[in-house]
Amino acid sequence: MSTLKSDLQSFLRPDQVSDNVSILAQHSRDESYHEPVLPDVVVFPESTDDVVKIVSYASANQIPIVPFGTGTSLEGHVVPIQRGISMDMMRMNKVLEVRPDDFLVCVQPGVLKEQLNEELGRYGLFFAVDPGANASLGGMAATNASGTTTVRYGAMRDNVRSLEVVLPNGTVIHTASLAAKSSSGYNLTGLFVGSEGTLGVITELWVRVWGIPEKTIAARAEFPDVESCVRASTAIVGAGIPVVRMELVDGPFVEAFNKYTGSTFSPNPTLFLEFNGNARNVEADVEAAMEIIQEEGCTTFDHVSDDQARHTMWETRHNALYAFMHQYPGYGHMSTDVCVPVSKLPAAVVRAKELLDETGARGAIVGHVGDGNFHVTMAVRTDDPEDVARANRFNEALVHTSLELGGTCTGEHGVGLGKMKYQEIEHGEAISVMRAIHSILDPLNIMNPGKLVDSPATVESHHA
Amino acid sequence: MSTLKSDLQSFLRPDQVSDNVSILAQHSRDESYHEPVLPDVVVFPESTDDVVKIVSYASANQIPIVPFGTGTSLEGHVVPIQRGISMDMMRMNKVLEVRPDDFLVCVQPGVLKEQLNEELGRYGLFFAVDPGANASLGGMAATNASGTTTVRYGAMRDNVRSLEVVLPNGTVIHTASLAAKSSSGYNLTGLFVGSEGTLGVITELWVRVWGIPEKTIAARAEFPDVESCVRASTAIVGAGIPVVRMELVDGPFVEAFNKYTGSTFSPNPTLFLEFNGNARNVEADVEAAMEIIQEEGCTTFDHVSDDQARHTMWETRHNALYAFMHQYPGYGHMSTDVCVPVSKLPAAVVRAKELLDETGARGAIVGHVGDGNFHVTMAVRTDDPEDVARANRFNEALVHTSLELGGTCTGEHGVGLGKMKYQEIEHGEAISVMRAIHSILDPLNIMNPGKLVDSPATVESHHA
Repeated sequence: MSTLKSDLQSFLRPDQVSDNVSILAQHSRDESYHEPVLPDVVVFPESTDDVVKIVSYASANQIPIVPFGTGTSLEGHVVPIQRGISMDMMRMNKVLEVRPDDFLVCVQPGVLKEQLNEELGRYGLFFAVDPGANASLGGMAATNASGTTTVRYGAMRDNVRSLEVVLPNGTVIHTASLAAKSSSGYNLTGLFVGSEGTLGVITELWVRVWGIPEKTIAARAEFPDVESCVRASTAIVGAGIPVVRMELVDGPFVEAFNKYTGSTFSPNPTLFLEFNGNARNVEADVEAAMEIIQEEGCTTFDHVSDDQARHTMWETRHNALYAFMHQYPGYGHMSTDVCVPVSKLPAAVVRAKELLDETGARGAIVGHVGDGNFHVTMAVRTDDPEDVARANRFNEALVHTSLELGGTCTGEHGVGLGKMKYQEIEHGEAISVMRAIHSILDPLNIMNPGKLVDSPATVESHHA
Repeated sequence: MSTLKSDLQSFLRPDQVSDNVSILAQHSRDESYHEPVLPDVVVFPESTDDVVKIVSYASANQIPIVPFGTGTSLEGHVVPIQRGISMDMMRMNKVLEVRPDDFLVCVQPGVLKEQLNEELGRYGLFFAVDPGANASLGGMAATNASGTTTVRYGAMRDNVRSLEVVLPNGTVIHTASLAAKSSSGYNLTGLFVGSEGTLGVITELWVRVWGIPEKTIAARAEFPDVESCVRASTAIVGAGIPVVRMELVDGPFVEAFNKYTGSTFSPNPTLFLEFNGNARNVEADVEAAMEIIQEEGCTTFDHVSDDQARHTMWETRHNALYAFMHQYPGYGHMSTDVCVPVSKLPAAVVRAKELLDETGARGAIVGHVGDGNFHVTMAVRTDDPEDVARANRFNEALVHTSLELGGTCTGEHGVGLGKMKYQEIEHGEAISVMRAIHSILDPLNIMNPGKLVDSPATVESHHA
């Protein structure tokens, strides 16, 4: 038995520490194309106190530590590239407190998005951030996740009120009060949200929740081309219509979905929309959106309001990725994630289409177009360096386009391993501030080392 | 001529440097009860490059430097307690770029709120944060200002997209891209907003703007007591009605306003409301709010929509402070600023009323009740230590009540000098993170020293 494992078992129960090969393999990778690395050991804390002990031990022994949730990250965030400890947070999975009158709920980091919404449904409430995957709240906060509803409800950073965090030195902090606004002290909540485990471990979250609206209407609108579809979406945002979701699904995705499910939608670029509110307002919103959509050349427009029909309508969007990848069995998945100011979205999407043609990458576009964020999903032969290089060339060219347009390399997937190479060019001198903050809070560079910011300090790979 | 002045004039024009006594006096204080301190010199940068030179000089010579806007802060933020350089940002007052399609505008820090809204009106846009004072955008960002519209549009932190900042070492950084959302790097924008000049000098801001709504309705509702008024406000927020402003004005303020203007409003606790949107939705909102208000025992309800009538209706709120202080000529002004989770607001307001009775402080309540934030405005004889002590006792007791209820010591005024004593009790161990961040970014402790966080390093008072 390794020293590391026996050390950890000196203060944790035996079943909280594992070096079983299949457990290690589960914690070696995420859902992306990034190469897996086995951790030396996986630990399963069950309380903040457990996390304090584990982090203090790792700190005293300079052992890398990577918090792990559902493993659904897309840029290699949870790959323990310097081995060490993978800390699986999924046993800390309780909804601790619901405060309906404050529209707040306190959860442990291993609570899943769907689990939370099930619990909240009993109070007529819901949690609004929806990244697609049924991710853990801790992981969503760590990556500042967002998704289809962000155009209306914001990203994780907008929905986290306060965090409990275990710092690399074992200190437990609370980043903020529960007040809806505050000008007291530096904004630590916003700093820890999106820090990808590099500054500390999130052990508790107070997040904002919302009342379930009286009425929800889903709609789909087909367009002759992607450009007119994007123009319609920016016009809807510009008109101030409080659309809740607004998603572009490109023709190739619709085709893939038809093949996958036997449905017979026209393989046109399609905008999927959702509106909610009280009955009167939401119908006015749909009408106003429909006018804009028609001006932009929409060829087909449908809308539905009952639950089942809405679910069916949105299936094309929700299953787009799976249907697309289904055409390429055994291929890996690489997704771009640029986000540009909305006025630049048509130009960025046009450029993406050109780049697909130029590079011959197998990809199609899907996007949270209300925020200026879109993905080109690519099927990649991960065992073929040529093919990976092609996809990388595409990704890089698109990131550079985004940066030139005033955008970012990652709207929601985060930096992890995949976007580190763009940090200097995106942030310029600001990277020095990020490095300084990292170096003062994690001086031993043990917190998810090698991710998000390059830190001057490095820790030798730990082989137990 | 002092060395400091001649040094500064070696790289600035003579009219950009002043030690004229009345100029020094203007930069010695803000609008609060905090004791003035004269800076050694006032400089007037006209560009980011000027700021870089001034900050680099101050850094090389360990001279304290305090950025100064309109001097409308309320906790002594701009008082140069260690003397040194007061840097007046008001010559950097240009609106640099308006991007209507992105709902973004780029401004220099000395642009005033009203100046910006005049400029934006030509585009059918407005800037939504309204702290009352016609403050500078740089100062508003530095204190994370908010105010009457925050319940709908958020605080400064929610409305700043990106900042240009000159760091204490003279480096110029940009905190973020212009994308509506991003998961790239640490969130520096949120960190610098509210940092009160202690981490660097804001030299440019990209802020979010909004379309001027089709219709705006103002309303006023009188209640038999403050508690029912507060309950009505929390119920309106709870119902999800998108109220734009919702302000409590306590009876004594209404009385003071009547005396001041000759108006004849009943001296009851009054809720002032504003709704906006397209005509159909906004009327539905007013109806829904009216129902709630009546259930909570409202005795009188009026609403108006034309510009002049709205302005007149809101005068009671906007002039409440001046009317109240008008009764106490020569007195100083101290304002509490607690913000609690909205469900705790009725309890906090009841406690504030009790504390007013117990301490005998001369005060009345006004509040942004939709956010859980309210102020007790007190008239204080600043030359009478007993009277100042009484007001301080009241303020302290109310802050402790707020912290016990899960709230903050300052919802919007900021820390400055006045709220430093509560930072440890509010933030606990998190203060160590704030100090670490401050110490690594401002290791010489020259940036607005002695404010917001106590830093271990201290710089001797500089007497030129």
